[in-house]
Amino acid sequence: MYKVTVIVTLKTGILDPQGKTIRQSFQSLDYDGVVDVKTGKVYTLMLESSEESVVRSMCERVLSNPVMEDYTYTIEEVVPS
Amino acid sequence: MYKVTVIVTLKTGILDPQGKTIRQSFQSLDYDGVVDVKTGKVYTLMLESSEESVVRSMCERVLSNPVMEDYTYTIEEVVPS
Repeated sequence: MYKVTVIVTLKTGILDPQGKTIRQSFQSLDYDGVVDVKTGKVYTLMLESSEESVVRSMCERVLSNPVMEDYTYTIEEVVPS
Repeated sequence: MYKVTVIVTLKTGILDPQGKTIRQSFQSLDYDGVVDVKTGKVYTLMLESSEESVVRSMCERVLSNPVMEDYTYTIEEVVPS
């Protein structure tokens, strides 16, 4: 069994309104020194195979929008609990 | 300057309908061996200070819902670009 962690974030330059809103929340709650906030998604997949080409295909076809988003992934073998 | 990466995931046992939907999408696209899919959020904060108590407070008050979600974070010093 393999645990694949996929992190999907907006490409640099793409507007992140949610990040902006969160930054404003921090400021209104008196947190100082918050220079920037970026948001993204994380997926944890439990897979029976660890073939990277399959994982990349999953990322590009289902988990991310290649036009606006970047993705990174890590694959680790786990012993089924 | 400090880059704080916060990952927020649902606590074990909490229903993840989005994860379930994504898993069904994988099956309908003929990806085999997808045992489970969990979803979560990732935040990248650029902060002027790296005080852990402040970061934890940000996570618990703004970035996550402590009743339903767990969070982890990493802090790394970065040279401002």
